[in-house]
Amino acid sequence: MSNGIRAAVIGGTGYTGGEVCRLLLGHPGVTEILPASRHQESFDRTHPNLLGSGLRFHDADEVTAAASELDVVFLCTPSGEAMRRAPELLKAGARVIDLSADFRFTDPQAYRAAYGTEHTAPELLPEAVYGVTEFHRDLLPDARLVANPGCYVITALLGLEPLLSAGFADPSAPLHIAAVNGTTGAGVKPRTEILHAEVFGSMLPYSLQGHRHAPELEDRLSGPAGGPVTVDLSTAHGPFARGIHIQASVRVREELREEISREVLLTRYTERYGTGAEGEYFVRVNAEPQLGGLTDKDYRRYPGVAGVVGSNFCHIGVDYDARRGIAKVVSVSDNLVKGAAGSAVQNMNVMLGHDETTGLRTYGL
Amino acid sequence: MSNGIRAAVIGGTGYTGGEVCRLLLGHPGVTEILPASRHQESFDRTHPNLLGSGLRFHDADEVTAAASELDVVFLCTPSGEAMRRAPELLKAGARVIDLSADFRFTDPQAYRAAYGTEHTAPELLPEAVYGVTEFHRDLLPDARLVANPGCYVITALLGLEPLLSAGFADPSAPLHIAAVNGTTGAGVKPRTEILHAEVFGSMLPYSLQGHRHAPELEDRLSGPAGGPVTVDLSTAHGPFARGIHIQASVRVREELREEISREVLLTRYTERYGTGAEGEYFVRVNAEPQLGGLTDKDYRRYPGVAGVVGSNFCHIGVDYDARRGIAKVVSVSDNLVKGAAGSAVQNMNVMLGHDETTGLRTYGL
Amino acid sequence: MSNGIRAAVIGGTGYTGGEVCRLLLGHPGVTEILPASRHQESFDRTHPNLLGSGLRFHDADEVTAAASELDVVFLCTPSGEAMRRAPELLKAGARVIDLSADFRFTDPQAYRAAYGTEHTAPELLPEAVYGVTEFHRDLLPDARLVANPGCYVITALLGLEPLLSAGFADPSAPLHIAAVNGTTGAGVKPRTEILHAEVFGSMLPYSLQGHRHAPELEDRLSGPAGGPVTVDLSTAHGPFARGIHIQASVRVREELREEISREVLLTRYTERYGTGAEGEYFVRVNAEPQLGGLTDKDYRRYPGVAGVVGSNFCHIGVDYDARRGIAKVVSVSDNLVKGAAGSAVQNMNVMLGHDETTGLRTYGL
Amino acid sequence: MSNGIRAAVIGGTGYTGGEVCRLLLGHPGVTEILPASRHQESFDRTHPNLLGSGLRFHDADEVTAAASELDVVFLCTPSGEAMRRAPELLKAGARVIDLSADFRFTDPQAYRAAYGTEHTAPELLPEAVYGVTEFHRDLLPDARLVANPGCYVITALLGLEPLLSAGFADPSAPLHIAAVNGTTGAGVKPRTEILHAEVFGSMLPYSLQGHRHAPELEDRLSGPAGGPVTVDLSTAHGPFARGIHIQASVRVREELREEISREVLLTRYTERYGTGAEGEYFVRVNAEPQLGGLTDKDYRRYPGVAGVVGSNFCHIGVDYDARRGIAKVVSVSDNLVKGAAGSAVQNMNVMLGHDETTGLRTYGL
Repeated sequence: MSNGIRAAVIGGTGYTGGEVCRLLLGHPGVTEILPASRHQESFDRTHPNLLGSGLRFHDADEVTAAASELDVVFLCTPSGEAMRRAPELLKAGARVIDLSADFRFTDPQAYRAAYGTEHTAPELLPEAVYGVTEFHRDLLPDARLVANPGCYVITALLGLEPLLSAGFADPSAPLHIAAVNGTTGAGVKPRTEILHAEVFGSMLPYSLQGHRHAPELEDRLSGPAGGPVTVDLSTAHGPFARGIHIQASVRVREELREEISREVLLTRYTERYGTGAEGEYFVRVNAEPQLGGLTDKDYRRYPGVAGVVGSNFCHIGVDYDARRGIAKVVSVSDNLVKGAAGSAVQNMNVMLGHDETTGLRTYGL
Repeated sequence: MSNGIRAAVIGGTGYTGGEVCRLLLGHPGVTEILPASRHQESFDRTHPNLLGSGLRFHDADEVTAAASELDVVFLCTPSGEAMRRAPELLKAGARVIDLSADFRFTDPQAYRAAYGTEHTAPELLPEAVYGVTEFHRDLLPDARLVANPGCYVITALLGLEPLLSAGFADPSAPLHIAAVNGTTGAGVKPRTEILHAEVFGSMLPYSLQGHRHAPELEDRLSGPAGGPVTVDLSTAHGPFARGIHIQASVRVREELREEISREVLLTRYTERYGTGAEGEYFVRVNAEPQLGGLTDKDYRRYPGVAGVVGSNFCHIGVDYDARRGIAKVVSVSDNLVKGAAGSAVQNMNVMLGHDETTGLRTYGL
Repeated sequence: MSNGIRAAVIGGTGYTGGEVCRLLLGHPGVTEILPASRHQESFDRTHPNLLGSGLRFHDADEVTAAASELDVVFLCTPSGEAMRRAPELLKAGARVIDLSADFRFTDPQAYRAAYGTEHTAPELLPEAVYGVTEFHRDLLPDARLVANPGCYVITALLGLEPLLSAGFADPSAPLHIAAVNGTTGAGVKPRTEILHAEVFGSMLPYSLQGHRHAPELEDRLSGPAGGPVTVDLSTAHGPFARGIHIQASVRVREELREEISREVLLTRYTERYGTGAEGEYFVRVNAEPQLGGLTDKDYRRYPGVAGVVGSNFCHIGVDYDARRGIAKVVSVSDNLVKGAAGSAVQNMNVMLGHDETTGLRTYGL
Repeated sequence: MSNGIRAAVIGGTGYTGGEVCRLLLGHPGVTEILPASRHQESFDRTHPNLLGSGLRFHDADEVTAAASELDVVFLCTPSGEAMRRAPELLKAGARVIDLSADFRFTDPQAYRAAYGTEHTAPELLPEAVYGVTEFHRDLLPDARLVANPGCYVITALLGLEPLLSAGFADPSAPLHIAAVNGTTGAGVKPRTEILHAEVFGSMLPYSLQGHRHAPELEDRLSGPAGGPVTVDLSTAHGPFARGIHIQASVRVREELREEISREVLLTRYTERYGTGAEGEYFVRVNAEPQLGGLTDKDYRRYPGVAGVVGSNFCHIGVDYDARRGIAKVVSVSDNLVKGAAGSAVQNMNVMLGHDETTGLRTYGL
């Protein structure tokens, strides 16, 4: 490692793969970046924002075969491919950060239930570290294999963990999460329904019969909740390219309803995450006091998703509907950065002994 | 021209007032339109989309004084002004359609609780007809005063009524409604937070501590629900100018969870609203069957808000999360048309004996 | 025809075909609409904005074979198909409005030069009426075949005709036209570059080496200019679904540079087109006086494309850069309405003896 | 930390001032950032994207008074204020980078002609270095006062310099520039015409009678052109928050029209700017070959503005309309970064002896 990090990005043609490349290009410790794809198109044509970067696509199989010369491999492949490639990569000594869903469940049955196919590398599941850096920081230095969380899941987890771990939520009520994701979340494969002319000025709800990531979320929230939780996840694509906006409604335990207030919630969140650069660097709580009267709209009281676009930050706002005993959480991140590539690089930094924020300190636009 | 409708639009400078003018300009039965405002700016400069319409602003007080020559007056004024003007207008013999909140509550206490001021014309509250044409059609021909519903409320009511009146909902659970409104809903008064540069690519959550329209919604849904309901309403402005997207999650009664399915829900909705032009003309249920496998995203399975923009239609889609026993409803409308001016004109048509769809048949873009 | 207009729309799956259907659905004189396509998908799934309209796709060949029972056929097919279908349709007695480019050139060589293929129905070119209603109104009642103009061309023609026919332009200088078209202009066929995630917040310039519609524009402008003109047309798709924004710079004849002013130009335009509903109904000139000082930005001094979306209007603004002797024209229309389907229906109205504005009077949003 | 940069940002509440802060926060050599404003609001509320940065507003006069402890002061104030503050700041020994127009003209008469007021510090004009780093790099190390160029001007200059300095342009013809700027360019001061609801899906042309920046552009282009040039600048705000899209049409000298081609132009541009990180780091030429046939739209043949948003890059594409002898240039940058704050930081780096790209290497989104 004396000469810097050598990294490969398999599945480099999609939005996530391009974003890993973009972040690695700005990372001062990285000396080699090998994006790989099956088709080997022009890199500049595939990722026009990286025009003139000098990167070009390599063959994914050749990169895999040469993994012993790599420090880390990012897998940005569709579900099912990571579990096929990871064993060989690990054997060659590379560390693997998988941005797909293949290693997110401890239990292979849970994987099959959510994705409909058999897991082909179940022996690796126990050692895979779930990559929410903020919550699993200690496990990362020794990890060979990291399961990077999904963009909905990490944004919801960061937003809800302090509330659940404080014991504020009524365990008998489902958590209601309405999530709006940018259209980069719909992938780069062309289809009519996600053309600009179709999405412009609209909202595209989908998977309301039960989103594929709800079980992962229920699994990961049960820890802080201290027991099983039910998540009612409603998802839509919104008319923006990047960003996840999560709005959660959590029923507060009957006996706490009088005590809870926006201030109590803010105190809990700032205790949990600290403040600014002193606390969890990438998690920022919006504690702006209300301006004007109570019935006025105050758009600065909660974070807006545009404020984190381009950054690895997750901004969180909270409120409390005292009349109905419901806590509200707004949590936003860039689905391609904190929700994918940024968390992956953050994990890489911890795995390889770099400062966690290296290459990721840029604030949102 | 003896039989043509003579209409005034008081509060004609805002988005709602402009939209009433736009619809009346295209209404074949209307022969006179008098927009009124306090400032009397250039009409074309205020509403550039109506360039060359020939309309100009009149003084609101003069229009009020001459109300005996009018058939109908639309009040598009801020809360508080309608209850001051309505008595004089009614006395002069004009019929009044109020697009503000002043006459939406039967009980003056409820008004004070929601708006913080005393009602100044409580004697008119009993006769005001709540203007969801689909549900109160019979009362309109004789109505002197119509309280046009709010845009969130009418869209949610149309979306939830069939579910609640069928007795599917668990009465012990709140109804969770996540609503996204276009930025015309934030009004025309300039403030930094709603500049294009701020809202572009973002979402602006607001009033999560309890939205002002939640009590109106709880009031209106208690009828179909057969008892009091709690509504957890979470609102945000989305990055589009027009349209309301409502996504509701409703817990199904325990004993019905096995029987309910998307098909059962669709059957209920199509029974309630009919199909196409044969049924409730302006309410259309999206019954598109799922294409592809169950885990695929199918963006045509639910309505998108862009599909109703510019029209008086409300499109509704439903689904069912069988694993969690939660019914999902997506309901979309143009906040300025079905959510305001279109419903007002629809009410006017019924009040004055015109075909209900006159001037409103345009489909969405 | 005693009972109303029977119309077919061949090529009904694209944005233009859908828009013709949308307008015909709102046309009080139309009693039958037969959209046709090769694939016969679900009509509601293809055009979600027309949910519940009751229309369904028919087979294009069957519709063509039954043309004797139709009054008018709209051809919304790709270039090359209209010239194959038109002869049969005309023989059967239907009148044909072609929205493709097949009949826009009088000279088959010009067609071949622009589109690269031989014209297969050159015998029909002489009788095809070029369908800018405002300029060729007299020819339409007897026309069997109308060549509907392209969206760039009609918007530029309406914007530049008064300037050129007044003899203001220096004939030795090219006309510079920078045109921005919505993404519906890129068609409904999916490709990565026009996905929402790609176009969001961007501009997509294309065909700068010479746009296919420049020769059509040069051809049609030479008449008002009284001689050949050169058009430097630069095109881009902008991040909106609908609308064409045209900004033209025209060098004024040397000898007129002192006399010309914004006021002189406005006078010319209002003489040419009249004012409001009294003049050319669908062409409206923005004559708003400047507010504030000369160096201030005044965004109401020129029309914005959003103001005509959803309507058949073309709004025009003008200005004059006195220091450089250059007249400026801004001309905007909805590319799918005035730029395509709306002009087609306007032409149909004149052809069939209806009031020209029937079904088209809706103002923009 | 003894050698760290201490910087102040006067006029820190606008979009440009916020962007300078954002970039300085990510600059490894900066140890102190003092944003200043007259009103001293909450910094986090003013710039929600910088939530938790720890910055707070200082009093502008106090910061000015303490300038001797600062290395550099960025002036992001409205026109007229920089020329009042600069003398005192320079006297105190701080170096000044002015992002307003106050020091962009060498000649105080030219300033008065463009801005309508007398220059109050004309004695400083001769020493002010015009801050296009790429063209005036040698002058920066010794500069006390830098006039940062306007966003339209720098993007157009970078795009046109190679063409003009190569002698390709016909000197008798004006340069036609159609520029579209994001709405952050309209400033943060609220006014109705730039509300989201107004700009959404639209284009806002302005100042077509002669834009205030046209003389600056004519001034700066006359050098590379080797003589006076006339610039026909047409400006509009487009419906995106950030970015400048410039499309220029340049008539080629008669005698060169046969020789010029897109390839000749590309060769000239890549000679001038080099390739990728080896050449001018922040200027990248899009030399993607055409895919498909000549008449096909190829959206990757030119740069799109979204590809540079968030970055200090300027992407340039070229083409040639051989039939009309007109060279086309597309040049895009982020108006707040390369067009303002990024160039300012780039200038600071050179002035203070840092690597020019420090803190600016992030690629676009």
